[in-house]
Amino acid sequence: MKRRDLLKQGAVLTGAVVASKVASSTSKVYASEKKYRWRMVTSWPPGFPILQTGVERFAKRVGELTQGRLTIQVYAGGELVPPLGVFDAVSSGSVQCGHSAAYYWAGKCNAAQWFTSIPFGMDAQGMNAWFYQGNGLKLWEEVYSDFNLVPRPAGNTSVQMGGWFNKKINTMADFKGLKMRIPGLGGKVLTKAGVAVTLLPAGEIYTSLERGVIDATEWIGPYHDIRMGFHKVAKYYYGPGWHEPGSTLELIMNKKAYESLPKDIQLAIDTAVAEMSAYMLSEFEQKNAQALVELLKNKKIKLLRFPDEVLSGLKKLSEETINEMANKDKMSKKVNEDFQRFKRQLVEWNKISEKAYYDFML
Amino acid sequence: MKRRDLLKQGAVLTGAVVASKVASSTSKVYASEKKYRWRMVTSWPPGFPILQTGVERFAKRVGELTQGRLTIQVYAGGELVPPLGVFDAVSSGSVQCGHSAAYYWAGKCNAAQWFTSIPFGMDAQGMNAWFYQGNGLKLWEEVYSDFNLVPRPAGNTSVQMGGWFNKKINTMADFKGLKMRIPGLGGKVLTKAGVAVTLLPAGEIYTSLERGVIDATEWIGPYHDIRMGFHKVAKYYYGPGWHEPGSTLELIMNKKAYESLPKDIQLAIDTAVAEMSAYMLSEFEQKNAQALVELLKNKKIKLLRFPDEVLSGLKKLSEETINEMANKDKMSKKVNEDFQRFKRQLVEWNKISEKAYYDFML
Repeated sequence: MKRRDLLKQGAVLTGAVVASKVASSTSKVYASEKKYRWRMVTSWPPGFPILQTGVERFAKRVGELTQGRLTIQVYAGGELVPPLGVFDAVSSGSVQCGHSAAYYWAGKCNAAQWFTSIPFGMDAQGMNAWFYQGNGLKLWEEVYSDFNLVPRPAGNTSVQMGGWFNKKINTMADFKGLKMRIPGLGGKVLTKAGVAVTLLPAGEIYTSLERGVIDATEWIGPYHDIRMGFHKVAKYYYGPGWHEPGSTLELIMNKKAYESLPKDIQLAIDTAVAEMSAYMLSEFEQKNAQALVELLKNKKIKLLRFPDEVLSGLKKLSEETINEMANKDKMSKKVNEDFQRFKRQLVEWNKISEKAYYDFML
Repeated sequence: MKRRDLLKQGAVLTGAVVASKVASSTSKVYASEKKYRWRMVTSWPPGFPILQTGVERFAKRVGELTQGRLTIQVYAGGELVPPLGVFDAVSSGSVQCGHSAAYYWAGKCNAAQWFTSIPFGMDAQGMNAWFYQGNGLKLWEEVYSDFNLVPRPAGNTSVQMGGWFNKKINTMADFKGLKMRIPGLGGKVLTKAGVAVTLLPAGEIYTSLERGVIDATEWIGPYHDIRMGFHKVAKYYYGPGWHEPGSTLELIMNKKAYESLPKDIQLAIDTAVAEMSAYMLSEFEQKNAQALVELLKNKKIKLLRFPDEVLSGLKKLSEETINEMANKDKMSKKVNEDFQRFKRQLVEWNKISEKAYYDFML
């Protein structure tokens, strides 16, 4: 049977092709078992730094670790499926895995949101502790199981920025009537604060900000924001990203595809994804720090911190919003309760550890 | 040639033994190449939680990833070599690898100290960013190359605690005449502050504190400190651990042993150690948070934060101490300059990201 025929007949689900018993030129290992070829789709543009490049590094690493027994071909958003088609493509098995962010799937799976980031949630270090040592990953697996998906934390953006504004935010009243592009839970919270929230595709944000169609937008952090050019059309750059204090990216794998792999290849994926996670976070930290230096050379940009009064107001509205979300279904309630319990305990320790550290260091 | 003879003739250096061409029972892969057996020594007591257990998990993972082509037999401190004999044992090639902390080797290699932690240095996230995205790991490799060692960051304790005290520290003057057990750079800084610094083996600290032979001691963080019982013989528990804000553990490998491995086995080690690093940090965070709750149920313990005045005083003395250390040799100067430059840039970003996050969260 030709490979093309295999593909047609649905073998693409596991990507399995029968391996020859001849040693490959790069490996001294003779495999008596199947070789696997996976396709991976992502939500990121081709070459998108840190995210798409990080995923490509991960795919390469898995190939090396398994000596080519599992190769993963990576497709950027739109190359095989649309950026937001990742979940469905992996869930249905039309591809074996994907890289994206769980909160994009809130419409299909409300509980997914907690696995990326929620307003006033936890930072990267806290999220990792919840996944690796708390119930975070177990709950995520439970939630995604209904969709034939196996999830893994796969990178973290670190604390994001609050966004670019052309109006100053001194009090909660300043949000009233503000036109801002901000998706997700952050948008829901700001709607409660009186913001006219708009959702614009990435390509339209710059022009809309320049022409005053919107007064503000959020994006990621200094490194990616500079590339969007927002500093040329906005006056104030606000931090911190209260709405996304530690957004975790996800690797999702089709459950049947993952389970059909030999144990050691599963472990190669699990190990490599933990490494990718650590590298991505480090890359975000280093590149954001460097970009901020560049940005502040532009004297027209004012870097501001949201006033305490504003953060308190947003925190209150965030709690309302999250409770509404949590009450939508039983699983969301369960996930939220575990998340909040873990966070409460961690917070007490962080008061005397990380917070005290940042207080004295800065 | 029998295995015993091979060992006698120095083959232990690379741990290489000729593999049979028969497939092992746990693996479907036929190896045509050598199998490798490594021995690993650590500085930790047998079963020491998070550290020794984490290392054992790492060794198991490497065995699984390589399908048994590299097995690592782990020995706790004292089982094969003394806890502080790790560096020499790996450097000389009498074992292939070890797990420890670089600052233990300050006497042999002054520049090593920066790769664990320095007073008022960086936290875990900052250290990782320096290693993975800055020059941290490159410099570490350069420094250790003279000792036939290949280093890898291999875990982080997260922010440590400042220690257990039976006298209150309100001002810098309160350090004068205080008898405290504190090793390393922290001890050097406190000596400048007038502390009578003593070094005691772990087994003698509790009794010395109980009998008033010492007034204070530092250890790690809530989880490990409780196990030492210090809360029974001290009144005040001070944070943060200004002297160790993010102590990185190390995996060290004998250079010849590492270089003699096939590329894919080297990568299995490199990937698994990054995973171990992430897991260990998460375990420290989660277990410390949990232990702190337990600890504070004991109403006799007062959890205190060093006053700002004290932290400022310690910071000044730390800068003096670090400059003295950095001026000892060219390589230390080079490492310190890179470390400080990276930290300065990261700090500006962290002001509006992590610090702002901790300010609003706590």
